[in-house]
Amino acid sequence: MNKIDIEALYKITYGLYIVCSGDENYGNGFISNTVFQVTSAPSKFAACCNKNNFTAEIIKKYNAFSVSILSINASPDLFGKFGYKSGKDCDKMTGMQIKYGETGVPIILDESIAFMEFRVVQTVDVGTHLMFIGELVTAGILDQLNEPMTYTYYRQVRKGIAPKNAPTYVDKSKLNDEAVEFAFKKFECPVCGYIYDEDAESVKFVDLPDDWICPICGAEKSDFIEV
Amino acid sequence: MNKIDIEALYKITYGLYIVCSGDENYGNGFISNTVFQVTSAPSKFAACCNKNNFTAEIIKKYNAFSVSILSINASPDLFGKFGYKSGKDCDKMTGMQIKYGETGVPIILDESIAFMEFRVVQTVDVGTHLMFIGELVTAGILDQLNEPMTYTYYRQVRKGIAPKNAPTYVDKSKLNDEAVEFAFKKFECPVCGYIYDEDAESVKFVDLPDDWICPICGAEKSDFIEV
Repeated sequence: MNKIDIEALYKITYGLYIVCSGDENYGNGFISNTVFQVTSAPSKFAACCNKNNFTAEIIKKYNAFSVSILSINASPDLFGKFGYKSGKDCDKMTGMQIKYGETGVPIILDESIAFMEFRVVQTVDVGTHLMFIGELVTAGILDQLNEPMTYTYYRQVRKGIAPKNAPTYVDKSKLNDEAVEFAFKKFECPVCGYIYDEDAESVKFVDLPDDWICPICGAEKSDFIEV
Repeated sequence: MNKIDIEALYKITYGLYIVCSGDENYGNGFISNTVFQVTSAPSKFAACCNKNNFTAEIIKKYNAFSVSILSINASPDLFGKFGYKSGKDCDKMTGMQIKYGETGVPIILDESIAFMEFRVVQTVDVGTHLMFIGELVTAGILDQLNEPMTYTYYRQVRKGIAPKNAPTYVDKSKLNDEAVEFAFKKFECPVCGYIYDEDAESVKFVDLPDDWICPICGAEKSDFIEV
């Protein structure tokens, strides 16, 4: 008997952030939902990063990172760039509005309501991921009007899913038979890798309107490939 | 110049949870806003706990803990009991609806929409707090209808504040002069210790209606003491 109901895990509340590191010559970042305060005196925060994630190497090298708190209005383009592409294949800093912090790390200002900057004081190996514990160096508000993007909103309204490197990624193929209904199909976006999962969405892909587009990168429905 | 704008820290998104440990004979728990997934394979979560917090001792002893995800409708009484009282002074399990997990720890079912249970696999010392890393043992849904309580909702709608042991506690007396307006007063609830802070609320305590009550425990306005 499966005693783990995956739905319970979705009831945990997260925000969405761009975690960045590097310097004026080179920077990289990724979208994270696991940034949180761990102590108040001094103010220390943790950020989880998959060991396969290119930014993990950059944070280790520079020993500092920034966090941009995404606005509820953050665009699919931003999610496509920082959530589904690797810094190994492209320079994510190109075209972004950036300021450099006290530690020298780039801080993304686009589509963010606030930012924070940290010096790494501890690195914890938690298995597939590293948890960087950082002491707060600077923090500021960028946008007083908009609410922060939450992971719930991203999932429920934007129909987004966690990328493979996220701590909250669910590999449904590894769940047992009772939990998965194999009559449902999945369709992959060839541009950003987003998976439309009929099981999760409760709407057959074929029944989506013809002008439906990828919620992450805006690719057309006709470009999707069944997986 | 103070380069840390505390308001930025409030833009981080958190849920609210009861973290519990113990067994059928003895249990204790506290309200936490820092529960989050750190890896997906296997499913591991972290929970932060102040070293002064009585539950920290209990988790260390039993090497397991449960997490109840609070409903948006969770009552002030529950916050009073699990957020502002210590298990050293009272038995928090009395009167609660409890089930015991695979590991034997109590899981609070009251006013919660889902629960999870963990076996501790790693304990990280992050200064004033311990971070317990637990591997998921069981998880289930308790209430399909209600949304989870968020820390933002608790602060903005319920007018709640973080207790002294929380990672997100803000000791405004330690901020520099520029950041604090000392013309504002604070009033403490003698029952649960809740502080009404005129600065944060933007309404003088004297201007609150006479039938205003403590948002945490329901104590009367006339009982409050200026601090």
